[in-house]
Amino acid sequence: MTRTSSLEAEISKVIERQAQGIHDKDAKAAVSHYAANAVIFDLAPPLRNASTGPALEQSLNDWFATWQGPIGYETRDFSITANDDVAFGHGFVRITGTKVDGEHNDLWVRQSLGFRKINGAWKIAHDHTSVPFYMDGSYKAAVDLKP
Amino acid sequence: MTRTSSLEAEISKVIERQAQGIHDKDAKAAVSHYAANAVIFDLAPPLRNASTGPALEQSLNDWFATWQGPIGYETRDFSITANDDVAFGHGFVRITGTKVDGEHNDLWVRQSLGFRKINGAWKIAHDHTSVPFYMDGSYKAAVDLKP
Repeated sequence: MTRTSSLEAEISKVIERQAQGIHDKDAKAAVSHYAANAVIFDLAPPLRNASTGPALEQSLNDWFATWQGPIGYETRDFSITANDDVAFGHGFVRITGTKVDGEHNDLWVRQSLGFRKINGAWKIAHDHTSVPFYMDGSYKAAVDLKP
Repeated sequence: MTRTSSLEAEISKVIERQAQGIHDKDAKAAVSHYAANAVIFDLAPPLRNASTGPALEQSLNDWFATWQGPIGYETRDFSITANDDVAFGHGFVRITGTKVDGEHNDLWVRQSLGFRKINGAWKIAHDHTSVPFYMDGSYKAAVDLKP
């Protein structure tokens, strides 16, 4: 395994574990993969989610509570560029499940992640998750797209 | 200037030049800052804009043609993390101007950029630009937010 592919494998594991934490609604596990001062551009407003640590854990738990049972959180086509202690990656995530009000969700989103190696462990320093919007005057979020 | 702040300065210049290219509606200049195989997650569908090179230049020119005069493209609060030949950055962009149909636009977006140093020059290998959407059942793009 080359140095580069070894770094990519390390970072892929962080992405997998974070996805598992979200699937399991384990906010403590999901937050553990973020750097202390991570900058998050989320699906929901505001432009930037400034929560970190326990506040981020709370906001994740609030979101988890809107779903019945586990959350489908399938990552696909992640590409990673890494060097030593800085990396970025991008790919798609399929979020599926049933909300507490009975609404079924099945949504593909794009995700970009920035990583820093801190005390020997890769942490998510930046997370940008979004869908595009239709520029037909409707300003509707494009929640019906597939990669 | 430390090695890190020197890298950040180099990358800031690329961000500024790319913004200038968009302001000036100079598609060739704007595209010149992208790596050949750049992956773009754009404001408009699809989830991933697969255009590169001349096709990307054409899609930029098509977008430029929807605006009267120059496009306001003000970058703010960009934070850059760099090491040797890999970097990522994130911040906000205010897009302002008048569309050809007379509609005035004034929109803040979030932007995440991944960079690789290729043949001694920093190139944008990944660009993710978006707004969040309202999770109040309207699925409206949040085009009225400020950083």
